[in-house]
Amino acid sequence: MTININCDMGESFGLYVMGDDEGVMPYITQANVACGFHGSDPNHMRKTVELAKKHNVKVGAHFSLPDLPGFGRREMKIDRDELANIVIYQIGALKGFLDVAGVSLSHMKPHGALYGMAAREEHIAQAICDACESFEVPIFGLSGTLHEEIYTARGLGFVSEFFADLDYDETGKLLITREHPALDPQAVGQKALRAVRDGIVVTTAGTEVAVQAKTICIHSDTPNVIAIAQNVKASLDAYMKAA
Amino acid sequence: MTININCDMGESFGLYVMGDDEGVMPYITQANVACGFHGSDPNHMRKTVELAKKHNVKVGAHFSLPDLPGFGRREMKIDRDELANIVIYQIGALKGFLDVAGVSLSHMKPHGALYGMAAREEHIAQAICDACESFEVPIFGLSGTLHEEIYTARGLGFVSEFFADLDYDETGKLLITREHPALDPQAVGQKALRAVRDGIVVTTAGTEVAVQAKTICIHSDTPNVIAIAQNVKASLDAYMKAA
Amino acid sequence: MTININCDMGESFGLYVMGDDEGVMPYITQANVACGFHGSDPNHMRKTVELAKKHNVKVGAHFSLPDLPGFGRREMKIDRDELANIVIYQIGALKGFLDVAGVSLSHMKPHGALYGMAAREEHIAQAICDACESFEVPIFGLSGTLHEEIYTARGLGFVSEFFADLDYDETGKLLITREHPALDPQAVGQKALRAVRDGIVVTTAGTEVAVQAKTICIHSDTPNVIAIAQNVKASLDAYMKAA
Amino acid sequence: MTININCDMGESFGLYVMGDDEGVMPYITQANVACGFHGSDPNHMRKTVELAKKHNVKVGAHFSLPDLPGFGRREMKIDRDELANIVIYQIGALKGFLDVAGVSLSHMKPHGALYGMAAREEHIAQAICDACESFEVPIFGLSGTLHEEIYTARGLGFVSEFFADLDYDETGKLLITREHPALDPQAVGQKALRAVRDGIVVTTAGTEVAVQAKTICIHSDTPNVIAIAQNVKASLDAYMKAA
Repeated sequence: MTININCDMGESFGLYVMGDDEGVMPYITQANVACGFHGSDPNHMRKTVELAKKHNVKVGAHFSLPDLPGFGRREMKIDRDELANIVIYQIGALKGFLDVAGVSLSHMKPHGALYGMAAREEHIAQAICDACESFEVPIFGLSGTLHEEIYTARGLGFVSEFFADLDYDETGKLLITREHPALDPQAVGQKALRAVRDGIVVTTAGTEVAVQAKTICIHSDTPNVIAIAQNVKASLDAYMKAA
Repeated sequence: MTININCDMGESFGLYVMGDDEGVMPYITQANVACGFHGSDPNHMRKTVELAKKHNVKVGAHFSLPDLPGFGRREMKIDRDELANIVIYQIGALKGFLDVAGVSLSHMKPHGALYGMAAREEHIAQAICDACESFEVPIFGLSGTLHEEIYTARGLGFVSEFFADLDYDETGKLLITREHPALDPQAVGQKALRAVRDGIVVTTAGTEVAVQAKTICIHSDTPNVIAIAQNVKASLDAYMKAA
Repeated sequence: MTININCDMGESFGLYVMGDDEGVMPYITQANVACGFHGSDPNHMRKTVELAKKHNVKVGAHFSLPDLPGFGRREMKIDRDELANIVIYQIGALKGFLDVAGVSLSHMKPHGALYGMAAREEHIAQAICDACESFEVPIFGLSGTLHEEIYTARGLGFVSEFFADLDYDETGKLLITREHPALDPQAVGQKALRAVRDGIVVTTAGTEVAVQAKTICIHSDTPNVIAIAQNVKASLDAYMKAA
Repeated sequence: MTININCDMGESFGLYVMGDDEGVMPYITQANVACGFHGSDPNHMRKTVELAKKHNVKVGAHFSLPDLPGFGRREMKIDRDELANIVIYQIGALKGFLDVAGVSLSHMKPHGALYGMAAREEHIAQAICDACESFEVPIFGLSGTLHEEIYTARGLGFVSEFFADLDYDETGKLLITREHPALDPQAVGQKALRAVRDGIVVTTAGTEVAVQAKTICIHSDTPNVIAIAQNVKASLDAYMKAA
């Protein structure tokens, strides 16, 4: 059994730097690469694909609503067909760089506001399936939500992910934040282990709720992401070795 | 022997309409589809790919400098690596829609200012090769220019095209214009035939210069493009039948 | 008493044409000029301001959500402060051209999705007031909605407008459409007259509801907008002469 | 006699941070605020104007070619009228925030590639004058270049600036770089003092060339900009006190 560690990568834009991709790449197994609609640009996409290849890290498409100024964290009303087309465009663009690098596409992951919308709005989850089904790789998501239900019903693979660096409220709802503060790396490592080993997360209310975790997500724009990545990797390596 | 007719297509953007793609598609054999950097958007790219498929028209990537407000007709200084990445991004994005439609990529064609820059600046032509070589389809261009020399030297296929709806000056230089006025359709048809049959174009100075024409380009934003397309097609069909 | 005719203008973008601004300008009294966030660009803004000046037409800022690909017709979730700043930016940009032309700013009008959002969501209407209050000109809107209430409570001028070229449903709700089909010009003229003279519109259900109309809006991207503008102007001129 | 210190500010974009504006503002007297075409956005423009106001720092418009992905550092071919309109748009947008804050516009400064183009190409310098003349504030530039000649001939104020954190080659030409490395703060302070007091800079070839310096420019994206700003300020304060 393998538990993966995934990270949103390649979100720098022009001279603007976001995250420490070179620092974090050695500790993860799956890179979710931005496709230019919330962050990144052709130069950073190429660089990130090459960096992932060098570290033998799998590459997925991290597509977004069209919202560069808002980093894809502002919800917008969008039709199913239009969203599907926006997603196809982004997957294709990333595949261009994968084709050049001779790397295959590994997975899909909606970014930011789109991720949450897919968990709640049927036409959004359906649009994502419309776009992704031709590419035949699984989609990351939150277990117990509408998108799990729809991705699965449509016959697309679903991979439940656990956010080790974000909080869950007492109903088990993930609390997505616009900026990511520094965190205690050991606590994040333990939180990831708990989710994987016991299927449990402690909520902001201090209660426990059930979670599923086939892959652990960490954010590269968290200030101390490298220490976090090291601790999560160490926790999971120890667990998988014992298992 | 087949002489193709190619047309720049899918350049509408959101509610903004450019060209009469549905009207012109029946008369052409190759569609150069805009990739969102000078015109088009994901909706129009999908629609155009589907329209081309319906009419059995081949689809090429019509990539551009990043210049939506200037419709890709403003030159900019750009590094070889950066341009290569911009081109890969666009080819990939178009391939996304081709993958979904089950259509293969047929050819490449730089748009607007980039087309002319590739004919004169070595690092631009090299960058285009850097981007295109993984995709293994020929690139359209002007015979007798630097880009023919470089594309060929790099081992990429080169297809010489003739612009039936633009003027050539006395040195044989193509006069690229920002807007395309209506033209006499029969004259355009005869001009195409002359280029194909005799390898000759009459310049703005009234002289004759040699041209090569494996494919004839027409622009879908010329007001009477359909009549033009019909005449060019009729001229070429008659010629190929006789040949 | 003067009843104005206002029209959304200057929405062309680069080579993309939207509406017949030159044709319609002679028949209106107030131009709502796009500011580059849903349509227009610096060239078209300058041209439109100069055209309005030539015809002695007043100029207002027609600001939008940041959504060029969607022509400002897609709702998005946006904070009050961020929206206020986006609106200030657009008003300022338009004022740049007004300053150069020596023309003063006449009024404000939110565009597309933002117009509707301001009629329903308090923080949106408040954000518009936050942005507009320093510029001390009235805001156009729909009477009987939340934005009338808030603009008025904030001490900003409110001008009720009637959409002669759109339908109202049986509850009196305006039906905003993404595209504007051709309409019977005389019927539109009569509809405008009825709204002004009687304060009544016939709804899609055939019933009558009360409306207020200090200014009549027509859309320049309606195919036969000139005939519409002529008829609305003729109806109102006759009415004002008689009054 | 006052020698000013100016700094390019407000270049952050969305969640992307560029420069330490809060750290550097106390040490400068003139802020050149980005207007959204190479960096910044409405939120950062407002914040920067308010920060400058709080520190009693004058605000100028730092306008750019339309090139957000390239941070305005890629040259592009652009017509005089089009450029003038692009500049008016940006000045107006910044003035929107100044109007709201009750602060007046102090000066103009072209950014990046546009700055250099204005020093060499007449139609570029003329376009900048076309845009700026209605706003009646001086333009910063390099003495001994074409833009000094044209701004002055057009009757617009010209303020010669010296780049304390960039190199000059043996011909006196400023070497504009895409990224700004950390520098020895004391050396930069001495370089500024030498330029102001003696009108001299030591070139990359070790020779001395004459320069004019009515205002000293420092870049806020230089890693140790605060130490640099402190040293430049201390050098100039001591000099002006003695003068």
